[in-house]
Amino acid sequence: MTPTPPSYRRDSLRDDLLAAAIVAVLLIPQSIAYALLAGLPPQVGLYASVLPLVAYALVGASSLNAVGPAAVLALMTLQAIAPLAGQVDLSAAAVVLAAEVGLLLAAAAVLKLDALAALLSAPVLQGFSVGAAISIALSQLPALLGSPAHGVHLRALVDSWVESSRAGAWLHPTTAAFGVSSLVVLLVARRHLQPLAARWLSTDLAKLVARAAPLVVIAIATGLAWAFAAPSHGVTVVGPLPTLHLPLALPLFDAELWLLLLPSAALLALVTFVSSFAVAERLGLQRGEHVDGRRELAGLAAANLAAGVSGGMPVGGSFSRSALNAEAGARTRWAGAWTALFLALAALLLAAPLAWLPRTVLAATIVVPVLAAAEWKAFGLAWRYTRGEAALMGLVAAITVLHTAQWALGVGVLISIALMLQHAARPHAALIGRVPGTEHYRNVTRYATELTPGVLSLRVDESLLFVNARQLPGVVAKHLDAYPDTRRVVLQMTPVNRIDLSGLEALSTLQTVLRERGIRLDLSEVKGPVLDGLRAAQWSSWFAGRIYLSHHQAVRDEQGMAP
Amino acid sequence: MTPTPPSYRRDSLRDDLLAAAIVAVLLIPQSIAYALLAGLPPQVGLYASVLPLVAYALVGASSLNAVGPAAVLALMTLQAIAPLAGQVDLSAAAVVLAAEVGLLLAAAAVLKLDALAALLSAPVLQGFSVGAAISIALSQLPALLGSPAHGVHLRALVDSWVESSRAGAWLHPTTAAFGVSSLVVLLVARRHLQPLAARWLSTDLAKLVARAAPLVVIAIATGLAWAFAAPSHGVTVVGPLPTLHLPLALPLFDAELWLLLLPSAALLALVTFVSSFAVAERLGLQRGEHVDGRRELAGLAAANLAAGVSGGMPVGGSFSRSALNAEAGARTRWAGAWTALFLALAALLLAAPLAWLPRTVLAATIVVPVLAAAEWKAFGLAWRYTRGEAALMGLVAAITVLHTAQWALGVGVLISIALMLQHAARPHAALIGRVPGTEHYRNVTRYATELTPGVLSLRVDESLLFVNARQLPGVVAKHLDAYPDTRRVVLQMTPVNRIDLSGLEALSTLQTVLRERGIRLDLSEVKGPVLDGLRAAQWSSWFAGRIYLSHHQAVRDEQGMAP
Repeated sequence: MTPTPPSYRRDSLRDDLLAAAIVAVLLIPQSIAYALLAGLPPQVGLYASVLPLVAYALVGASSLNAVGPAAVLALMTLQAIAPLAGQVDLSAAAVVLAAEVGLLLAAAAVLKLDALAALLSAPVLQGFSVGAAISIALSQLPALLGSPAHGVHLRALVDSWVESSRAGAWLHPTTAAFGVSSLVVLLVARRHLQPLAARWLSTDLAKLVARAAPLVVIAIATGLAWAFAAPSHGVTVVGPLPTLHLPLALPLFDAELWLLLLPSAALLALVTFVSSFAVAERLGLQRGEHVDGRRELAGLAAANLAAGVSGGMPVGGSFSRSALNAEAGARTRWAGAWTALFLALAALLLAAPLAWLPRTVLAATIVVPVLAAAEWKAFGLAWRYTRGEAALMGLVAAITVLHTAQWALGVGVLISIALMLQHAARPHAALIGRVPGTEHYRNVTRYATELTPGVLSLRVDESLLFVNARQLPGVVAKHLDAYPDTRRVVLQMTPVNRIDLSGLEALSTLQTVLRERGIRLDLSEVKGPVLDGLRAAQWSSWFAGRIYLSHHQAVRDEQGMAP
Repeated sequence: MTPTPPSYRRDSLRDDLLAAAIVAVLLIPQSIAYALLAGLPPQVGLYASVLPLVAYALVGASSLNAVGPAAVLALMTLQAIAPLAGQVDLSAAAVVLAAEVGLLLAAAAVLKLDALAALLSAPVLQGFSVGAAISIALSQLPALLGSPAHGVHLRALVDSWVESSRAGAWLHPTTAAFGVSSLVVLLVARRHLQPLAARWLSTDLAKLVARAAPLVVIAIATGLAWAFAAPSHGVTVVGPLPTLHLPLALPLFDAELWLLLLPSAALLALVTFVSSFAVAERLGLQRGEHVDGRRELAGLAAANLAAGVSGGMPVGGSFSRSALNAEAGARTRWAGAWTALFLALAALLLAAPLAWLPRTVLAATIVVPVLAAAEWKAFGLAWRYTRGEAALMGLVAAITVLHTAQWALGVGVLISIALMLQHAARPHAALIGRVPGTEHYRNVTRYATELTPGVLSLRVDESLLFVNARQLPGVVAKHLDAYPDTRRVVLQMTPVNRIDLSGLEALSTLQTVLRERGIRLDLSEVKGPVLDGLRAAQWSSWFAGRIYLSHHQAVRDEQGMAP
């Protein structure tokens, strides 16, 4: 879909460069903020914003996906590595986590597992979105108010805050004033700046201006902090970044650490793929661009592996930056590589002023978009639609806030599977009878039909697969209770598209059970590919019934063939 | 289904007592053998054969299921608790494991999770059956040949055997002679005794005689061991059982131990339920008895909780004993309670002779039925049917033998889910056209049809659920590529029985994407309950298309209604 370098034309290059410059300006504070959110030094976020973007540009599927650190991934990274504090260097653990996420995504690409994305059903994703937004906002609250409190989940945070309050430091007024005023400006700008700017500017330009608001707030706050020497008034600033050089190295190989991080890595890989793919697909469809799931897996794998060898942290597609990328007119995946280049240059130039950026302002720039992007309305909608799914959504949100994202997603995925199996487990089999005077057979509960004594006709309404097959004998037995004088059971197989091994076994069990009651099992109207499969399995060695081309023949027992 | 005590008639009582006596005789050596297989003292098997049977009789669903220790469960128990040796008392760990299995089964009964049984698909179960049979046979080999070697899985066993061989003890000739001759007698009896006995006796009686063969072998071997003072020739015997008294006590509550055993307990619960339910259902269907899944869960929960407070180990339905129970003429669940009573009495009377039973003979009585019951032919059948499922079966069997049952089942379940999602992930949507001269619309690839320019008609062929919903916009976009001049997309919804929250979101995404390309999305022939649900979700707030009663009206844009 996207042009490859040889056909990379001059106007594409110009548009990509412009979009890259705009995205890079947003990426600098975001990458630092997300690294701090994950409990890592600020430069880790910058490292995760260079090579991974180039790797995605080389391999990925979407022309618009802006890869790099992201808020939700940072929260999950924090919760995965924080329990290891004191045992390993957290930056080294983040690198291992990124490498592991990359390897899992690569394995999924090779094994064509993009369908696993379905595991994160809408209620799980939306509950998680709300819960993660609350968790992220809560995690920024101490920084915003100037408290030294911190914690991986709510209880730890509250405990820590209570403790620091006892030491007389529940908030720092100057810091809180800085932070809260930034928050208010950002909230007002988010709501009113775009319509205001649209009075004078084109819609597209107004959107860009509105998106620039956080940068203006950051620039002003940094200037004020420098002018008034904020640190000497007790306001925490980002502080000097170390000389930036990509620490190229293989991640620490410690089998125990890798195994310990594996469950978190698997869930991070799932969240990374699902959220990035959703962004890429939605933006792509607007342009008529198909995003290939396996290629997207490969691109994200490359990006995370790149983060894993260059001192980064787990990365994925960011919704806010991808949307900005699209609005700023990016044409090809190479915009991502240019973003990396601009970021590296800007980080060198801006390291000195960034050192003065108050952390409370950075916290405000995280909190506002995260809370705005959460799908708050989803819960009300779900409640009106299906209570069960709404309850699942609420549960996932609650576990995310009260415990950790990993547990919330794990529980959510398990419940989704359980719900699906509960719906799928009973194969539907309708009792059918003859429409009088015809050779048609229809559901006896919906049509006026006549039954043939001694013959029980059932239409199997689904493919016989492991999710439902085991219950087939029980379903047939229930119908037999109503017709105890049955001598033959004929299954009409028209709707059956596939029979897997579990389905084959269910048919065999059904026949055995029926035979012991002196009843013969026959089939009618078996689809060609299904019959071919049954023959390949040499089922004639055990199937003792007959196969009929039409159900009417089966009931009248004409022209049946051996299996 | 089964008579409750007040209606427990005299002839049922007589039949139950007879069957119970026969089953109890088989249960005594089996329960000791399975306890030893699990690496536990022999009396643990006896404890697990008293209260659990009474608990199942009070709560369970099947009149025939003979509950108690079982070979596969013993193997899984060994692999779950053996790594804890040295940290906790293994008998205490087995009790915790049984209690945990009981609690999980009880939770599944309350939450109606019997459908989860589908997770163990036929290839996973059959691969596991073969792998577990090989593992159990291998685990008995040292006892059979008189080697002191032992190990939880193949590598540990081989290492241990190599080590004991170096010490000059790779086998003990007298023990091996005892064991191998028992093995040969049992194998010959298994194959030839029943037809031989049937020459003189009725079929039913011949079956019972054949089943008694292991007991005769055990009795003779015990007599020989006593007569020749086997232990003084270096043949290991079971040894004196401690005074039997049920150690009634709550299981050790150690949160770390419970958490450590949780994954094993979950898989044991799944295997217990699936195998017991399959036995109960198959035997029950022959009598026209329906076994209720939830009640079976409750019965197995009660049995395991009983084992957990009386010094037992995880228990489940045993195929061999349940079949014997049926053949011996058991009528009601109370046969199980009588079995427990007889076992307790017999254990008291037989404790002295059982002390002389050579362990090699006990090993032979485990190996023969386990190898005979494994589904060896399943692999060839699967290979002819579907290579993918055959590969899964082989993988599960290999992991069971080379590593542990827990890993094999865990991997098998994950792959089953992945395979199902891969098949289910793409919703099928057929391009439909008008059959000329009619108001019928059919698949354009199968019928001669005509298309209306500017209108793209698609029939959605499945319910829109989370397993497939996410791919709907992509599927529609593919069709749009072929018809770029489309102004309206009409989805015919006849086959859609349910739309879950993920499906609703997919419809919303599809509309958004189409609208951005200037295309309107309409629906036709939406089923009543589906439309009611959509209205409850107040979808009119976002759905901008129209709903038509017939697809023909939709294409001609007549009489559509607002959502």
